[in-house]
Amino acid sequence: MDRLRGFGDRLAEAVRRRGNGVMVGLDPRLGLLPEALQPDNASPREVAEAFRRFCCDVIDVVAPLVPIVKPQAAFFEEFGPAGMEALAEVIKYARHKDLLVVVDGKRNDIGSTAEAYARGYLGADSAWQADALTVSPYLGDDSLTPFVDVARTQHAGIFVLVKTSNPGGARWQDVRSEQGAIYQLVAEHVEALAAKTVGDAGLGIVGAVVGATYPTQLAELRAAMPHAWLLVPGFGSQGGTARDVAAAFLETGLGAVVNNSRGILFAYQRSEYREIGTRDWQEAVAQATRDMIDQLAAETHAGRLRRN
Amino acid sequence: MDRLRGFGDRLAEAVRRRGNGVMVGLDPRLGLLPEALQPDNASPREVAEAFRRFCCDVIDVVAPLVPIVKPQAAFFEEFGPAGMEALAEVIKYARHKDLLVVVDGKRNDIGSTAEAYARGYLGADSAWQADALTVSPYLGDDSLTPFVDVARTQHAGIFVLVKTSNPGGARWQDVRSEQGAIYQLVAEHVEALAAKTVGDAGLGIVGAVVGATYPTQLAELRAAMPHAWLLVPGFGSQGGTARDVAAAFLETGLGAVVNNSRGILFAYQRSEYREIGTRDWQEAVAQATRDMIDQLAAETHAGRLRRN
Repeated sequence: MDRLRGFGDRLAEAVRRRGNGVMVGLDPRLGLLPEALQPDNASPREVAEAFRRFCCDVIDVVAPLVPIVKPQAAFFEEFGPAGMEALAEVIKYARHKDLLVVVDGKRNDIGSTAEAYARGYLGADSAWQADALTVSPYLGDDSLTPFVDVARTQHAGIFVLVKTSNPGGARWQDVRSEQGAIYQLVAEHVEALAAKTVGDAGLGIVGAVVGATYPTQLAELRAAMPHAWLLVPGFGSQGGTARDVAAAFLETGLGAVVNNSRGILFAYQRSEYREIGTRDWQEAVAQATRDMIDQLAAETHAGRLRRN
Repeated sequence: MDRLRGFGDRLAEAVRRRGNGVMVGLDPRLGLLPEALQPDNASPREVAEAFRRFCCDVIDVVAPLVPIVKPQAAFFEEFGPAGMEALAEVIKYARHKDLLVVVDGKRNDIGSTAEAYARGYLGADSAWQADALTVSPYLGDDSLTPFVDVARTQHAGIFVLVKTSNPGGARWQDVRSEQGAIYQLVAEHVEALAAKTVGDAGLGIVGAVVGATYPTQLAELRAAMPHAWLLVPGFGSQGGTARDVAAAFLETGLGAVVNNSRGILFAYQRSEYREIGTRDWQEAVAQATRDMIDQLAAETHAGRLRRN
């Protein structure tokens, strides 16, 4: 994949190539791993190794199907330095399989500290080598600047939390001022940053996280950020359906990547896939991924990207 | 130190024992390390080892003087898994030297993901074994709950970002609604969580990060959160003085820990300490720490804690 184009274009190219905007969330959980991958003991090193193997096995299945994966840093970090090593190996393996990788770390800080996160995570020159990182906006607009600057030189991107999928997200995000609700003010700033960094596909290197669980706000935020990629969590186990996320897509079928973690990774435990899953948990992953691709194609503009 | 008491009491005990509320921020920066500690090359492993050694050397100096240190996760993370290993060793060493350790990670997420961060960082049973973690509130009140629950069982604490020290912090934190500014609404919730978890010292296990650079808001927030420990960044190189942070302390001298990172770590480069520093960079660290303790004792209620 051409690492010399901006992230907005790189993501567009990857989505077009696979013909869909499905993002597989790599959220390994000890209790849910298939029996064959359960570690012998729960020492951090053994668990980390089981997570690495599980995620790489998932990547083997989904790499030909989807454009992008999103490892959740927390699940690796929980197991200390060994977990973080496994995270690095998973990122490397995903990139080697031609997947884009967003690290879901919801990091942020100020000034040179924010820059350290950006330099550490973003792009081929960084230690973690991710293509993008999720970033939290509470610290203010100046806290986002170092990420944008580093992302630009590294052909990488960021996704800023705007409207999250959890019920309590409204507590402060939805507080209304005379200028609008907080999430709307953050969205305005994301749009400004995205518009300044658009590539050929008309989308910038700064995107927004907008939950699938609030379809009305999703439509409103799609309109408010015409140049931003939306990363949409909350599909599947959190209750969001293909119809709920339809508003996230632009008419071209670009503009949104819809994340599914548990619904794909642990499909072998879902009633629809249990029969396949007991024979072969990876086949359940493949089938759940294909089904999600089909659902999005049927219910959203993503259908226009469909390869025949 | 008694790990079976709540974090509010454990911090009070540590502050009383050392007679001051100085927090040393462990922010290693490659370009600023004393010459003798510069790595042979800038590979992640060499840099991480230099950071480990530098931080442990700082800990040797400050452990008898101050109650608490705050490693900044970003500076370690920048160097990948090797950096994270160094972070783990620094935390371990600080605890072994009887210091409390707050990991400054500004982490957060929702539901079981937030719980993974909490279980990973907080307390003696966790992989990172920190006594507390800084947490970002953008994701809402329910995102804080798993941290509070885990902190309670682990005798650990969290510090929630309320009002940060950077100029851009005001961008969204200061937005006013009919119920008050966002930072005031977050502060209200922190106070509620702190009040529910108070120990003998009258302070809870949930504290707030409030910058030294906004003295008026510091006073206002001290009043709004009578049961919360305040973690006050922005002293020294960011411009905050002892007088600026005076309002952060309760009359007892408890209630605030004031962080200084660069001003202590790299004191050997400051004009006041250059003469000592060229002979012995660690002696410059010691002198800068003692001077900050004296300044806080002279200008704030922290003087009441002073040991003779």
